[in-house]
Amino acid sequence: MATIINLKDIKKSIQSVDIVAAMKEGFIHYSNEKTVVPPVGELLFEDPPGDVHIKYGYIKNDDFYVIKIASGFYNNSKLGIASSQGMMLIFSQKTGQPVAILLDEGHLTDIRTAAAGALAAMYFAPKKIKAIGIIGTGIQAKLQLQFLQKNNPCKTVWVWGRTLENTEKFKAELSPDFDIHIAKTPAEVAKNSTLIVTTTPSEVALLDAKDILPGTHITAVGSDTSDKQELDSKVLQKADIVIADSIPQSKNRGEIYRAIKDGTISEEKIVELGHVIQDPALQRTNDDQITVVDLTGVAVQDIMIAKAVYKTYMNTKI
Amino acid sequence: MATIINLKDIKKSIQSVDIVAAMKEGFIHYSNEKTVVPPVGELLFEDPPGDVHIKYGYIKNDDFYVIKIASGFYNNSKLGIASSQGMMLIFSQKTGQPVAILLDEGHLTDIRTAAAGALAAMYFAPKKIKAIGIIGTGIQAKLQLQFLQKNNPCKTVWVWGRTLENTEKFKAELSPDFDIHIAKTPAEVAKNSTLIVTTTPSEVALLDAKDILPGTHITAVGSDTSDKQELDSKVLQKADIVIADSIPQSKNRGEIYRAIKDGTISEEKIVELGHVIQDPALQRTNDDQITVVDLTGVAVQDIMIAKAVYKTYMNTKI
Repeated sequence: MATIINLKDIKKSIQSVDIVAAMKEGFIHYSNEKTVVPPVGELLFEDPPGDVHIKYGYIKNDDFYVIKIASGFYNNSKLGIASSQGMMLIFSQKTGQPVAILLDEGHLTDIRTAAAGALAAMYFAPKKIKAIGIIGTGIQAKLQLQFLQKNNPCKTVWVWGRTLENTEKFKAELSPDFDIHIAKTPAEVAKNSTLIVTTTPSEVALLDAKDILPGTHITAVGSDTSDKQELDSKVLQKADIVIADSIPQSKNRGEIYRAIKDGTISEEKIVELGHVIQDPALQRTNDDQITVVDLTGVAVQDIMIAKAVYKTYMNTKI
Repeated sequence: MATIINLKDIKKSIQSVDIVAAMKEGFIHYSNEKTVVPPVGELLFEDPPGDVHIKYGYIKNDDFYVIKIASGFYNNSKLGIASSQGMMLIFSQKTGQPVAILLDEGHLTDIRTAAAGALAAMYFAPKKIKAIGIIGTGIQAKLQLQFLQKNNPCKTVWVWGRTLENTEKFKAELSPDFDIHIAKTPAEVAKNSTLIVTTTPSEVALLDAKDILPGTHITAVGSDTSDKQELDSKVLQKADIVIADSIPQSKNRGEIYRAIKDGTISEEKIVELGHVIQDPALQRTNDDQITVVDLTGVAVQDIMIAKAVYKTYMNTKI
């Protein structure tokens, strides 16, 4: 009988997990081809509009395989229900038996995405950070800022959001811990920050190459489809190092896809996160370099976080 | 919070469900293009060997969407564990929220497959059945025979299995209810029966056209991949009516795939189960016709049975 873990227990368990370390291990497995990750399954709904993504796979010679179901139903807010829903399922890789059902309601996807941002910053943020720049004001904007603190305890933050109301809410919520400045434009964020995280579902570029300061690192989180784009292609052209979480995925989604499609950069420029963190020669070599990590989200992150939560939950139960 | 339904409660609930009627409704929705059923997700394991199939989809303008995970780990029997494992998940089509988790361990897949066989026989079995012929002696062989009784209360059975030991076990188990004859060859089954169900994972044809009696109906259940084949292609050539559960699936798996690939029959000969049961003109018109229904298994069957079990369970709980 599978262990059922509800959201409350998931949130409790995750507090004692080093999620950034788990993401690091996962990306290394992925880039070293130690994982099996088939194409994402997709189910679309028209009325009300919704999409379901099924990500699944396993690390070779491991104990488990994992299936994640994550959906977005964007009219849910009208009903007072979170738009993100879903669960993660853990099965035995030896017998196929169900091991655990994590009723995470999309929470673990939010967390593993923020942890990947922290991992990217750990390797690519400049030594001295002028300020942290955040594009967007949603749940991912908050989580990215909080996760960055693990390795970059910078308290000065510039934020831009699509509506002033949400941006002021963001500021009010995070002000006890941070010195938050509201920017009038994304460019104003860029001109004041050297560690930038973009978290919107924008389909038009928000950041221009001319506004990016020397030494800036950008983690692009928002774009995970072929339509979304937050960085003008010239930002990737200007960057000294451009990193994909998954090179295969970057061929059809995210900032890198757009920049290659525009002819602004070539495929040869792209390195993969799991390779880069193993090889100092591929990392930042001085404080003036501009670096971009493009995160589209890889199933190995779901595998790693589901396993970590399950193991912690079982250990604390004993 | 999703309702968790364990195998014991699933088995209890299913007793009051008319599963054959649910399959009929499902195949009609499917053939009338009222369903959304994306390609099956697949995950393969080498050591120990195993495969996982993820089937998912929904009926348009319905309340739910369904994801089924079903795996086969063929070394499980050495550990005393069933080779089939899995679960069915029901979510709201309006919000994406999880509704129910059916921990069926593969049982509902067995049941919906047997119910589709009974549905096929309901429309295509000859009026007078000489005997029921069963090829194979596993769980599906037994279930098919039991489900056939709902509409064809014939008690005379001819069975052939790959090992005599298993065939004798089959006979011993079912003898209280049936008059079971063990055949030395599949041909002997065919020569004595006019309602035949084939249930093996054979990759070589077991039944030849010359042995099939006039008026025989055959339901081919075993072959659900491009490699498996139980009927010689000439059986489909000799048949007056050849029916697929899913015409798109028959293009790359099952008996029909093999016969078309051999050039023995043409695509134009194939009709789809959900159309045939709505149109008497496509059904058997006399007792000498030979008919073949090729079942490869369609996600709409999983959707229908999951919904039926969930609704019954909730009603009996009140």
